[in-house]
Amino acid sequence: MTRRLDLFAPTGVPGLDEILAGGFLRGKTYLVAGEAGCGKTILSVQFLIHGALQGEPGLYIAIDEPTNQLLRGLRLFGWDLGDLISSRKLMFLDMRTHFSKIYMREERKHIEPRYIIEQILNAAKRINAKRLVIDPIAPLVYGGREEDVLYAREFLREMVFAIEKTGELTTVMTSEIPTGSSKLSRFGVEEFLASGIIVLGIEEIYGNVERIMYIRKARWAPVKPSKYVFDIVSGKGIVIREPLSEYLKRVTRARA
Amino acid sequence: MTRRLDLFAPTGVPGLDEILAGGFLRGKTYLVAGEAGCGKTILSVQFLIHGALQGEPGLYIAIDEPTNQLLRGLRLFGWDLGDLISSRKLMFLDMRTHFSKIYMREERKHIEPRYIIEQILNAAKRINAKRLVIDPIAPLVYGGREEDVLYAREFLREMVFAIEKTGELTTVMTSEIPTGSSKLSRFGVEEFLASGIIVLGIEEIYGNVERIMYIRKARWAPVKPSKYVFDIVSGKGIVIREPLSEYLKRVTRARA
Amino acid sequence: MTRRLDLFAPTGVPGLDEILAGGFLRGKTYLVAGEAGCGKTILSVQFLIHGALQGEPGLYIAIDEPTNQLLRGLRLFGWDLGDLISSRKLMFLDMRTHFSKIYMREERKHIEPRYIIEQILNAAKRINAKRLVIDPIAPLVYGGREEDVLYAREFLREMVFAIEKTGELTTVMTSEIPTGSSKLSRFGVEEFLASGIIVLGIEEIYGNVERIMYIRKARWAPVKPSKYVFDIVSGKGIVIREPLSEYLKRVTRARA
Amino acid sequence: MTRRLDLFAPTGVPGLDEILAGGFLRGKTYLVAGEAGCGKTILSVQFLIHGALQGEPGLYIAIDEPTNQLLRGLRLFGWDLGDLISSRKLMFLDMRTHFSKIYMREERKHIEPRYIIEQILNAAKRINAKRLVIDPIAPLVYGGREEDVLYAREFLREMVFAIEKTGELTTVMTSEIPTGSSKLSRFGVEEFLASGIIVLGIEEIYGNVERIMYIRKARWAPVKPSKYVFDIVSGKGIVIREPLSEYLKRVTRARA
Amino acid sequence: MTRRLDLFAPTGVPGLDEILAGGFLRGKTYLVAGEAGCGKTILSVQFLIHGALQGEPGLYIAIDEPTNQLLRGLRLFGWDLGDLISSRKLMFLDMRTHFSKIYMREERKHIEPRYIIEQILNAAKRINAKRLVIDPIAPLVYGGREEDVLYAREFLREMVFAIEKTGELTTVMTSEIPTGSSKLSRFGVEEFLASGIIVLGIEEIYGNVERIMYIRKARWAPVKPSKYVFDIVSGKGIVIREPLSEYLKRVTRARA
Amino acid sequence: MTRRLDLFAPTGVPGLDEILAGGFLRGKTYLVAGEAGCGKTILSVQFLIHGALQGEPGLYIAIDEPTNQLLRGLRLFGWDLGDLISSRKLMFLDMRTHFSKIYMREERKHIEPRYIIEQILNAAKRINAKRLVIDPIAPLVYGGREEDVLYAREFLREMVFAIEKTGELTTVMTSEIPTGSSKLSRFGVEEFLASGIIVLGIEEIYGNVERIMYIRKARWAPVKPSKYVFDIVSGKGIVIREPLSEYLKRVTRARA
Repeated sequence: MTRRLDLFAPTGVPGLDEILAGGFLRGKTYLVAGEAGCGKTILSVQFLIHGALQGEPGLYIAIDEPTNQLLRGLRLFGWDLGDLISSRKLMFLDMRTHFSKIYMREERKHIEPRYIIEQILNAAKRINAKRLVIDPIAPLVYGGREEDVLYAREFLREMVFAIEKTGELTTVMTSEIPTGSSKLSRFGVEEFLASGIIVLGIEEIYGNVERIMYIRKARWAPVKPSKYVFDIVSGKGIVIREPLSEYLKRVTRARA
Repeated sequence: MTRRLDLFAPTGVPGLDEILAGGFLRGKTYLVAGEAGCGKTILSVQFLIHGALQGEPGLYIAIDEPTNQLLRGLRLFGWDLGDLISSRKLMFLDMRTHFSKIYMREERKHIEPRYIIEQILNAAKRINAKRLVIDPIAPLVYGGREEDVLYAREFLREMVFAIEKTGELTTVMTSEIPTGSSKLSRFGVEEFLASGIIVLGIEEIYGNVERIMYIRKARWAPVKPSKYVFDIVSGKGIVIREPLSEYLKRVTRARA
Repeated sequence: MTRRLDLFAPTGVPGLDEILAGGFLRGKTYLVAGEAGCGKTILSVQFLIHGALQGEPGLYIAIDEPTNQLLRGLRLFGWDLGDLISSRKLMFLDMRTHFSKIYMREERKHIEPRYIIEQILNAAKRINAKRLVIDPIAPLVYGGREEDVLYAREFLREMVFAIEKTGELTTVMTSEIPTGSSKLSRFGVEEFLASGIIVLGIEEIYGNVERIMYIRKARWAPVKPSKYVFDIVSGKGIVIREPLSEYLKRVTRARA
Repeated sequence: MTRRLDLFAPTGVPGLDEILAGGFLRGKTYLVAGEAGCGKTILSVQFLIHGALQGEPGLYIAIDEPTNQLLRGLRLFGWDLGDLISSRKLMFLDMRTHFSKIYMREERKHIEPRYIIEQILNAAKRINAKRLVIDPIAPLVYGGREEDVLYAREFLREMVFAIEKTGELTTVMTSEIPTGSSKLSRFGVEEFLASGIIVLGIEEIYGNVERIMYIRKARWAPVKPSKYVFDIVSGKGIVIREPLSEYLKRVTRARA
Repeated sequence: MTRRLDLFAPTGVPGLDEILAGGFLRGKTYLVAGEAGCGKTILSVQFLIHGALQGEPGLYIAIDEPTNQLLRGLRLFGWDLGDLISSRKLMFLDMRTHFSKIYMREERKHIEPRYIIEQILNAAKRINAKRLVIDPIAPLVYGGREEDVLYAREFLREMVFAIEKTGELTTVMTSEIPTGSSKLSRFGVEEFLASGIIVLGIEEIYGNVERIMYIRKARWAPVKPSKYVFDIVSGKGIVIREPLSEYLKRVTRARA
Repeated sequence: MTRRLDLFAPTGVPGLDEILAGGFLRGKTYLVAGEAGCGKTILSVQFLIHGALQGEPGLYIAIDEPTNQLLRGLRLFGWDLGDLISSRKLMFLDMRTHFSKIYMREERKHIEPRYIIEQILNAAKRINAKRLVIDPIAPLVYGGREEDVLYAREFLREMVFAIEKTGELTTVMTSEIPTGSSKLSRFGVEEFLASGIIVLGIEEIYGNVERIMYIRKARWAPVKPSKYVFDIVSGKGIVIREPLSEYLKRVTRARA
């Protein structure tokens, strides 16, 4: 069977597209999971910028941080997105203040999923978006009460199905893994709903602390699970350095 | 005592049938457990295709993903099942939308097990199915509330007994193991109800990430528990590479 | 002090009776614990067959699986018990359907322990049984609700005392250990009530998966706790291969 | 400072009294903790027999097992206590049937601690006991409900204080540690109330399973915490073989 | 892209500013996490003193300890802050007695976040503060009841957003990690809200106990996660000694 | 900066005062934590005796054990405190019977903290105490019910603040760590309230069991966290032997 290259949306991460045999499957949802400070937002924005520069508009849904602060941070990092935003190649949408107010007034009600999904899809339509980032996914569907977990799971399924049904959007959802946990996601279903999972982590190896990217799952793609050492470089984003196995071989020898 | 070969349904996984001394015991239920992205769906469909090509119709019950999306993914993977479906050698049945609606309306009632079991058995009868896959099993019998666990266990027993009573169907149920858990199943009874258990996993060995198949239990069969390294190959599915012990011997020597 | 050999009921497991200095203490209760697929049922039935062939009738209480399915499985394994059953040397009693119905109707009431104990003892009397197997013990006394644990513990004590009071029956109760748990039993008292404990397990050693029998406790007997590697052989059952310490010595040397 | 030898009650365990610099402190309470089948009852009875043979009457409170069964087991083990019992050097008192009935009738009330403590002290007085064993302690003061833990702790304190107040009895309480737990006791206070703690355990060392005695605490005594390998020998009881450190040195060398 | 040095507030910790490529990002919030006795307060005060000496007033919010006791301790340590306080370069504000009273009277009400945030911002304004320390953060927003966790999380977000909105304050919040936990924070959100995370810990290496600083996250900054060995020196505060990897290399060699 | 020696209260433990650069900070609170039988009471009493012999009266608050039993035990250990008590250099105060009665009558009410704190401070005043020991701290402020934890934490803060406010007392609180736990204290705040933490433990090293003292925290003092091997010697108390790192070096070499 032949495989057409336009099936894949290249991620723009040097080295990753080769590993993924082209990039993310167009129209599918990917989970980027990791502890705080591992590079989830960098990877997400890198994915959007790369698309935008190739003519594919991208939509970023900001949950945890106001978009103006995020954009300021990205400028510091060496990414000035002003032009891409004004040319409507990128759109940053704030969806958190809404929830915050609700909780402070103790009016914790189920938010109608349909309403949120429509908001996202309408915004995507307005810029004819081909790429979507929801960073992070959990607070969008969940207020934190134990009894809402079931609801959040169903909400998530609905959302992923609705987004994938459009056939237009390749989506990255990020998942915050609390430090010290071995879980991949908050609700335990994200990892099964996603077509691919990339875990960004940190490992200490003989006293050195290295960033590790774990290609954990790539559904329907001929991709072997694998681990890589990577760096975060200002103005460039995530850059894959070498396979973890090569790194280990090298440092182990150096110590022998 | 002699053993007749028609007792076994070959799985179609190169290497696995030799290990299982023929395949799965006809009429029995097998559990394929694993974390996200380990190949549970690939193995299940491979089992059905292999049967279909040998004239044994197969029924796939899709729980987590709409069948049209699943079929599209399988085409991407190199498996176009159109002909097998139209010749009624394969049937893909959606059983999830039903549950989803129930939960969004908060009408979480016990679903009459008899009704669901009948639906499955009727569909199987319509194509004269010899093979059945339920992928995954947990959401079919369980809505996620703690107080339903007892109910789900009993439901599961009833279902396995009812299916095995027909004497017609060799069944594969898949079980999603949350990442970081050492359990084999959601309710803790699947592993005891099943006649065999295959665990699909991922292990990191000196920085390399390898897929591992663990033949964990094969009731009444002369099969020793064992572990194998395997690959997922587009258009072929799961292919067993070598025993884990051989693999370890080799890579350990290479590093010495 | 001298020890009379008729104090012991030989288990019929090649190698085990030597280790146990004769077998199980007559009139006492033994716990055979293990994860799914470790050979608990094989060992139990082997114990009954061995007795039956020596003229000691045996009663098997089936909890999790209908006896007709169990007998079919045993035939597959190479054990046709038809003659022993018709000559009343073996009796297989189903005690599960009763409970199943109760739960489906949500009528979870405490079942009168006296009634169940009487049923078992009456059946044993009918064939003049000398050996008894309850496989597995937990679902017989427990419906799964947290608040019933206390009740189940007391039920278990009563049952063990009642059975041992007859002085007629050497009993094997099996205990399903959920995979990944380090417990020996569901209620935490079985291990203290039993006169002996045999744990059947699986260990991975350099990539090989081996079955391990752990003689964990043998009350009042001059038996040192110890571990053995064993195999399950069709038509023969459990066969002890060698002490784990010997096995380890050998494979470690082979790798050096 | 001088130390008078009549301060200590020798345990009768070959090797242990040397380690304890004489034995247990007279008038104090000791905790013998361990998993099922580790020798807690053997050590307790050995302590009573040794005292009885030296003219110190001993009282054994049986909680988990009817005394007639226990005595039969001890005979099997090579200990016929008939003479010591009829000469009132040993007394075996059953305290469990009482509780059992209570629970089966669901009449779980707090049992008046004073009543139980008096029963024990009265029995001790009747034979002028110098040694006391409660085997095991937890079920005597606790019915298993979470809300009774506080009560059980206070009950235990009262009992230990009341017994030690008599100044007559050197006491051994046994504590059943569920397999796989790292706790020393059920309520977390026994270990602080006791003047000494002996943990009986089992450790696997290179595939061999050895019994280990851990002298964990010996209050006010010049005893260093230490571990020993021991055996259980029919008719003799517990016999200390060698320090664990010596054992490890030897087996490690044998493997090098 | 160029980076202006006035973007960073140097921490005053010898070695740390080089690692952070200048210090903390002005206007952002940093989390200093660690178990008891690891140097969180020392680092916080060092950060304020360094700023004050360079003309940047600093505000310290004391939660767990009355400020007069804290100041006495700091004098003992070699830091007499009297002059800096009287010249209004440093201000120490007590915010704990308030809460304490509330709890003793059992009047646990939600404290209006706006009120507390205003108090802090007003105090900061009064001395024209550029640096802020809240030591530790959890008791300020949380009374300890499980049902308040959601509230505390939202409170924290509000506070961080309000403080960062002023654009004036570079903030250090400390987080007490209970010994034996692998978490970074009490509520699991602090680590995601903070622009940088420094974990202060203790590690035992071949019997030596060393203080380890882990630069865990430094958002938007070209900083690799890394670990360093550090000392606490009277009158100087925290002083970085060497990278952990160098330390390990050295001590491992010394033992070979 | 100079440091006056009268700032420190020497502990009287040979070796420890050198490590602590003088002893405990006068007027501050120290936590001595450890499992059962690790020497917490020995260290506490040693601290009081040392002070008493130097003219600093000491008060011991006995919580878990009647003081007459404690004093008898100390005599056994080689410490006869009769003279120091009658000369009012030492005072032993019983505070447990009070609580015990309360619980047995099920009248578990919050005890007015002010009342208990006053009792302790009044007793201290009567002998003009300079040193105070509360052994152990948890049962003084806590009845064991989950809902009282918040209360106990606040009680503890109040008590530490009230005692330290007097400026007269150097205090040692002991904390019982349940075996197998990695926590330092019952409520998780003791470790943060204390100015110093000493953990007494037991470690098994190649089969030898050694007592280890871990200087975990010493606030405001130039003390590096460190571990030492120590012994308990009759009539002397705790005696530090050598740093753990030296011990390890030695035993590792001896085995090579």
